[in-house]
Amino acid sequence: MKSYLDMSAPELAAELAAVRAAYERLKAVPRKLDMSRGKPNGAQLDLSMDLLRQDPAWLTASRKGTDTRNYGELAGVDECRQLFADLLDLKPENIIVGGQSSLNLMYDCVVWALLLGVCGGSRPWGQQGRIKFLCPVPGYDRHFAITQQFGVEMINIPLLPTGPDMDLVRRYVEADPQVKGIWCVPKYANPSGVTYSDETVRAFAALRPAADDFRIFWDNAYLVHGFGDEDDHLLNIFDACREQGTENMVYEFVSTSKVTFAGGGLAALAASEENVKFLLKQMGVQTIGYDKVNQMRHVRFLRSAEGIRAHMKKHAAIVRPKFECVLQTLDREIAPRGIAHWNRPKGGYFVAYEGLNGTAARCVALCKEAGLVLTPAGAPFPYGKDPADSVIRIAPTYPDLPDLAAAIELFCVAARLAALEVLTAAK
Amino acid sequence: MKSYLDMSAPELAAELAAVRAAYERLKAVPRKLDMSRGKPNGAQLDLSMDLLRQDPAWLTASRKGTDTRNYGELAGVDECRQLFADLLDLKPENIIVGGQSSLNLMYDCVVWALLLGVCGGSRPWGQQGRIKFLCPVPGYDRHFAITQQFGVEMINIPLLPTGPDMDLVRRYVEADPQVKGIWCVPKYANPSGVTYSDETVRAFAALRPAADDFRIFWDNAYLVHGFGDEDDHLLNIFDACREQGTENMVYEFVSTSKVTFAGGGLAALAASEENVKFLLKQMGVQTIGYDKVNQMRHVRFLRSAEGIRAHMKKHAAIVRPKFECVLQTLDREIAPRGIAHWNRPKGGYFVAYEGLNGTAARCVALCKEAGLVLTPAGAPFPYGKDPADSVIRIAPTYPDLPDLAAAIELFCVAARLAALEVLTAAK
Repeated sequence: MKSYLDMSAPELAAELAAVRAAYERLKAVPRKLDMSRGKPNGAQLDLSMDLLRQDPAWLTASRKGTDTRNYGELAGVDECRQLFADLLDLKPENIIVGGQSSLNLMYDCVVWALLLGVCGGSRPWGQQGRIKFLCPVPGYDRHFAITQQFGVEMINIPLLPTGPDMDLVRRYVEADPQVKGIWCVPKYANPSGVTYSDETVRAFAALRPAADDFRIFWDNAYLVHGFGDEDDHLLNIFDACREQGTENMVYEFVSTSKVTFAGGGLAALAASEENVKFLLKQMGVQTIGYDKVNQMRHVRFLRSAEGIRAHMKKHAAIVRPKFECVLQTLDREIAPRGIAHWNRPKGGYFVAYEGLNGTAARCVALCKEAGLVLTPAGAPFPYGKDPADSVIRIAPTYPDLPDLAAAIELFCVAARLAALEVLTAAK
Repeated sequence: MKSYLDMSAPELAAELAAVRAAYERLKAVPRKLDMSRGKPNGAQLDLSMDLLRQDPAWLTASRKGTDTRNYGELAGVDECRQLFADLLDLKPENIIVGGQSSLNLMYDCVVWALLLGVCGGSRPWGQQGRIKFLCPVPGYDRHFAITQQFGVEMINIPLLPTGPDMDLVRRYVEADPQVKGIWCVPKYANPSGVTYSDETVRAFAALRPAADDFRIFWDNAYLVHGFGDEDDHLLNIFDACREQGTENMVYEFVSTSKVTFAGGGLAALAASEENVKFLLKQMGVQTIGYDKVNQMRHVRFLRSAEGIRAHMKKHAAIVRPKFECVLQTLDREIAPRGIAHWNRPKGGYFVAYEGLNGTAARCVALCKEAGLVLTPAGAPFPYGKDPADSVIRIAPTYPDLPDLAAAIELFCVAARLAALEVLTAAK
């Protein structure tokens, strides 16, 4: 098979005609496929049904005797703080258990910083003119939506195989006091699958921000979501920060959205004890406490960090074949044509497909016309603008395997067609 | 028995000595009593244990086929929106089901208004200098804490037996564009027990605010929480607003915190369809959705507005004897002394005790020294400042009946002592 990049104009024209015909044939068959969001499949949700089959008496009393059905325990019941602390190799005092959405906790942290300021900061972010956030790209669209909603200027930072370009991060953070934060998904990053190297994590911990109120938003969404033979290693950023005396610089976020239920799980925030005390004071005005019955439900069902890791092996068994399907098809259909590259993640929820410049939006549109919904091109970038129009986020988990196979076949045809259109126009 | 107000100086001195001795005897017995917060008692929480005993299969699929365990349904599952709509005599399109705390929904609404603005408003509240909220007093301390946290100027509005002084409200709202909101608990108000009259509700609906972004925060926390022979009637404010074309002016809040579990219930926001659409757009950046499994749990357990009302009769049977205990003791120990008056609520969670000026903080301190925790004096007022130092919020629900009886006996002795100290000093 010949790479498209090596084809002559007549060869390209012939291939274009052939691929267009193939696309039209696929399009003629009505279908409704969705690879747009990082959603668990029903089979994954079924793994946690015992969460809902528990003796009520076990849910209503915490270890220290709190009636979980009543008000109180702003930071969460002790055993649930302990569970997340064990998972993150921290202390319960570092944990605030929230509601069911880690995104909501991140949003709240941004809101508090904007309106009230952060621990050690001299003024609220919102009183300092136009502030900035660094955004490693490609990244998570819902992160960028938060800072966009509040008018925060977002700056693209290239994501390397080791994590964000730390020279660039350091330059921005240490020179510009208007830079107040950075969005990170440090393990199996959304959508690139990259896990930050130890050196990168240490470089984060060693930052000396120009601002007195800079925060790293460390969204550890996929910390136990490996599905490969071996798990990526991520250094505990708080260990690195402790060496540098910079523990207050980090807010870490986790959730059980893709451990138990995306529509009924738990989220948690991890931070230095000083930050936790400060944040609880702000949070205490917002609520009397989150759902403690659901906290107990999770403690009883997941039991321990070890229990969580064992449970995640069951997820991996479901998720892994889907990634294999996607990667094998890409290897077969796209690799020989030389029109794209992509990551081979050992965990997480995404494959980031990087095609030729100027083909991503077209490819997504072609898929949509033929009945396959993808994440909008550009979504993994601030303001939805992919400067090269080349990256497409593929989310293999939600469809059943036969649907997924059909979806990725269609995707490959659309991707080839989009590439051929660009290549023939260029000749 | 002679009123303290009619006593001569020698009579007062003798009474002071006697009551002080009684107080010291009580104080000598160690006790730990709590009448500080409007918390349900364990027996009330036991009424909802079937919430936790349900067939898991009934919780995971909504009527329209949504897998509630997965992401989505930002405004809540249809049948849960319907449940709250029925309860409030509105349409499902008027309802957003939130997490487990209505306070959190109120907080979010204030935050969105500050940072992003409200539907129809020209600018965010936060960009308009020092803004103001009207605060009917006595009121709910956690409302006032939100506006205080954000530096909103709070203005006391006297609460009359018919609701807030609407002449004063109208004057502020219609003259001053910096007045952006008012905190209301329209039924069995916290702590006064007042239910707003139809005329008051209509006067709210007829307001013509000077600001284009004024909102009424209508915290209908006790809408089904009557325990008397008959329930107070509260006019549906949206009906009144519809006549006036002012539906966008109101955010209504409810929760099941005192229906099912305070630590694992549901909250909802009700608003005009236009407001709901606008708010969902803001909210969609904050979260992908709230806990839908818990929504289904509540739908299955409570079933209907009728089901909720039937369930609340069981609460009433537990709560009513506690209020009778408090009121009978106050009638016996305080009324003949002429040193205070209080409401006789037919629902809600509080008795508002109004003693002589300058006695509330002292009475609370005396109780505390003797082992009884009360809500801090001043709490029902903005900034925690009761101008007359006369109001104490009594929360009878949490203690068991014998503890409550002991607590209110102690309270009466402390109240008499505080009154006598003031009266003897004045002679």
